[in-house]
Amino acid sequence: MTRKVLISAVTLCLAAVAGVSAASEPVDPISPAKEINLAQAELGKKLYFDPRLSKSGFISCNSCHNLSMGGTDNLKTSIGHNWQQGPINAPTVLNSSLNVAQFWDGRAADLKEQAGGPIANPGEMAFSHTLAVDVLESIPGYVIEFKQVFGTGEIDIDKVTVAIAEFEKTLVTPNSRFDLWLLGDADAISANEKAGYRLFKESGCVACHNGSALGGTSFQKMGVVRPYETTNPAEGLAGVTGKDADRFKFKVPTLRNVTLTYPYFHDGEAQTLTAAVDIMGRLQLGREFSEDETAKVVAFLKTLTGDQPTFALPTLPPSSDQTLRPTPFE
Amino acid sequence: MTRKVLISAVTLCLAAVAGVSAASEPVDPISPAKEINLAQAELGKKLYFDPRLSKSGFISCNSCHNLSMGGTDNLKTSIGHNWQQGPINAPTVLNSSLNVAQFWDGRAADLKEQAGGPIANPGEMAFSHTLAVDVLESIPGYVIEFKQVFGTGEIDIDKVTVAIAEFEKTLVTPNSRFDLWLLGDADAISANEKAGYRLFKESGCVACHNGSALGGTSFQKMGVVRPYETTNPAEGLAGVTGKDADRFKFKVPTLRNVTLTYPYFHDGEAQTLTAAVDIMGRLQLGREFSEDETAKVVAFLKTLTGDQPTFALPTLPPSSDQTLRPTPFE
Repeated sequence: MTRKVLISAVTLCLAAVAGVSAASEPVDPISPAKEINLAQAELGKKLYFDPRLSKSGFISCNSCHNLSMGGTDNLKTSIGHNWQQGPINAPTVLNSSLNVAQFWDGRAADLKEQAGGPIANPGEMAFSHTLAVDVLESIPGYVIEFKQVFGTGEIDIDKVTVAIAEFEKTLVTPNSRFDLWLLGDADAISANEKAGYRLFKESGCVACHNGSALGGTSFQKMGVVRPYETTNPAEGLAGVTGKDADRFKFKVPTLRNVTLTYPYFHDGEAQTLTAAVDIMGRLQLGREFSEDETAKVVAFLKTLTGDQPTFALPTLPPSSDQTLRPTPFE
Repeated sequence: MTRKVLISAVTLCLAAVAGVSAASEPVDPISPAKEINLAQAELGKKLYFDPRLSKSGFISCNSCHNLSMGGTDNLKTSIGHNWQQGPINAPTVLNSSLNVAQFWDGRAADLKEQAGGPIANPGEMAFSHTLAVDVLESIPGYVIEFKQVFGTGEIDIDKVTVAIAEFEKTLVTPNSRFDLWLLGDADAISANEKAGYRLFKESGCVACHNGSALGGTSFQKMGVVRPYETTNPAEGLAGVTGKDADRFKFKVPTLRNVTLTYPYFHDGEAQTLTAAVDIMGRLQLGREFSEDETAKVVAFLKTLTGDQPTFALPTLPPSSDQTLRPTPFE
């Protein structure tokens, strides 16, 4: 064994040891998608990209949860039917299967329930479940595919949202550099990034941003130590529970792929990661990070970008002569 | 040689003969894309899908020329910035490299010139070339890729539109059943579809809808024999040439993938192929097709759907802290 090979072997061994110790970290690696009903997911992918689920024929799930852009629209708040301004920042669809509930206020229990929301929301896709199903049932290509997937060509909103949710379950992003480090590759992140991770843990960020998605598992008040000032009227969890104590509590967002999911916070008011970390420190932790500390935490956050979904752009089955035509301007 | 094999051999031989005779047809098969600068095309694909080329950060080339839907938006007229109603039906981008000029009125000489239009059109993407270039230059991922592709990271609108045009050159759709027939597979289309093709030729449709795209090579008056009545104010070629004789002359649209590119005509008023064929017969040819004849021509047109573009949805490079943010509501 040459000296060089020996050193490599020792490095590898140390990396393995680091991997073992990572088991005690408050963050887990993202697992690749498993146990996916592929037929459902492929149908769901088409539906996810199909603007015919909107009144205008112009807005699809992918319009605001754009899979070319971290599963978001990178806007403060989204654009809905007739160019209406949305009330809140569109959260990323990436790794959303790991969330305890969906939407910032958790009003949907799971991805299936979430998927039905925007279709019928007058400010978003502005359609109705009945009309969306009517459209799909008039498209021979969909009738055949629903028959293949569900054993019947009789479409209902339940099957539509089951398929979309199954596709969304595939949208996990494993293999970030941080995950490779967690899994034992000691060199996957730099000393500076490791220092950022230590600071992230020691200063308390990790109290809410933990688990495999670094967030998404609890609701927390925005502005714990100092109040958060915003013109955005969103009430958060209180709107769902009716409890005054839940005012301004929002689901903790995932930090996975956070370099892609700007702008930040439920109101989209933080334009940069640097601003977001600084504000979080002061408002949630009562701590003023130095410039150097903020830069370290940001460097750590940049290691959380995983494999983005890669798949062929779906070709949608064409409408038939009987398909209800979109009415964008009525 | 068994009897069955002999018959197969004879069939193949006849097919080859049919292929030879197809050489004299007024329609040529679509050729697969050749001589593509792949690096440019890959960059152009990202730009084609990038809504940051619009003021709102919401509208990309793919919004109105959706590659999941035959390269169109399947709307009568498109939706532009601030939900403005477009003046004309969005033509398909598929096989558009075969057009003699771009836009319905031919005001752009080629794909490169076309690509710059919507970016700066206040009714479409509502941005400016300067701002679009500023945005791209602030995105490190793009700067690197422009450097790789063009040898310099100094971006200008010329390079942007060259790249988009190169990507669009890849969007040809070979291997339609009709092309397989032209190329010698005698069974690729049915007797009824062949009858439709004969009628298409004999009744005169082919006078304008010829060449490999079955259209796109000339400007013709909409309403030759009888006037076309529409509330759409588009003037056609006259707006470009200033000649009164060119009033209501539009570029003949391609019939390739016509089952995917509904609704039809420059005003998008024909919702079905049946309606479009019927109107074309009466207005352009002075001929009233019987129901059976129309059905035959429609059956032929349905053989013109080729291989749709298949590629992985591009992942876009993220904005930097310096990137100008979209302003959809200002």
